[in-house]
Amino acid sequence: MKKPFVFINCAVSADGKISTVERRQIKISNELDRERVDKLRAESDAILVGMNTVVGDDPKLTVKSEKLRKERLKKGLPENPIKIAVGNLNRMKLSSDFLDYGNAEKIIFTTEKSDKRKAGKLRKKSEVYVLGETKVNLHRMMEILHEKGVRKLMVEGGGTINFELLRERLVDEIYVAIAPKIFGGKTAPTLADGDGFRADKILNLEFLGLEKLEDVVVLRYTIEK
Amino acid sequence: MKKPFVFINCAVSADGKISTVERRQIKISNELDRERVDKLRAESDAILVGMNTVVGDDPKLTVKSEKLRKERLKKGLPENPIKIAVGNLNRMKLSSDFLDYGNAEKIIFTTEKSDKRKAGKLRKKSEVYVLGETKVNLHRMMEILHEKGVRKLMVEGGGTINFELLRERLVDEIYVAIAPKIFGGKTAPTLADGDGFRADKILNLEFLGLEKLEDVVVLRYTIEK
Repeated sequence: MKKPFVFINCAVSADGKISTVERRQIKISNELDRERVDKLRAESDAILVGMNTVVGDDPKLTVKSEKLRKERLKKGLPENPIKIAVGNLNRMKLSSDFLDYGNAEKIIFTTEKSDKRKAGKLRKKSEVYVLGETKVNLHRMMEILHEKGVRKLMVEGGGTINFELLRERLVDEIYVAIAPKIFGGKTAPTLADGDGFRADKILNLEFLGLEKLEDVVVLRYTIEK
Repeated sequence: MKKPFVFINCAVSADGKISTVERRQIKISNELDRERVDKLRAESDAILVGMNTVVGDDPKLTVKSEKLRKERLKKGLPENPIKIAVGNLNRMKLSSDFLDYGNAEKIIFTTEKSDKRKAGKLRKKSEVYVLGETKVNLHRMMEILHEKGVRKLMVEGGGTINFELLRERLVDEIYVAIAPKIFGGKTAPTLADGDGFRADKILNLEFLGLEKLEDVVVLRYTIEK
């Protein structure tokens, strides 16, 4: 199967949370780390998030730096990477920063459980692929993205889609940026949620290195083959 | 209030878990990190764990290295730090590694909800303090430990007691050892579980430094005052 190079980038508290128990969007990382993330976005062909993130956080998913956007245009690339949402689209609003902010192509990968009329309306702003009955076929999604020319895919969470991609062995690298904060909470989301791996099936990583950005430490891993 | 210096030590997967969803005891860290932890234990006057950890993992909580134990004896210290369990004692077995393994003083801090007959039986092997109706009064516990001469208290989890101590602002430092593994699971325990902090009440840490032990990265924080 041909697929893009896929990496997860994730900012977490020191206790491993990507948000508080209320799932409120909250600044986790620092300015230097946000610059690092913006560069990763600018180097990517597409940025993918799960539907919980789209509905809960409504992220813009654009390149913040005007300079980096101009550099993309100079290289003949679109101003921003493609924005991708994965999951059931019934809870999506017809207007959102995900759909409307910035100049970017949008793709929604969803299932047959999605409301067809809602899908029809969203098609005015985004491509919509129906892949699978109740769960998006992530392997097929990767093939389609590769056919569309996506070679580098950045995944920005949340915990459910990260886990699904990890379980399907579709992730090549992971960046974890650890910030000096404690959120706590047994229901607070983490880098990888979902059902989890059983103790005899945990996913082993290979440590590639670290970067210290003031008080944020960025760890980089690849998946052990 | 006089209290010991309190630090949490915790090994986590790269996605912030201290165990898998089955809560099975599993080796998270590497040999070098386990040596670091053993040294921290040997330098401590007492080691504290929550009741879930006692019942679920039955940890020995002794100093593994014979050399370090001998050094403690030479200094006039007990061979091992005091073992401390906190919480409702009804689920505790009357025989366990926590109670029986190694040469160490034991203290159980529990509440009035605990079965008095069970407490009586446990008193043959451990001191038992009843502090509070339904929740152990952690401030009073710290005072008692200080009175007993405990100046350095190591906390080895789990996520519930860690969070309670952090919420009560009783923790001075945190070590997080991050291993190259993904456990996943929205119900898997983390460094700090419990109710969690609201977004406007998160706990800010100060980054003290890091240590790279092969593929395990140890981050050290103090609580921002």
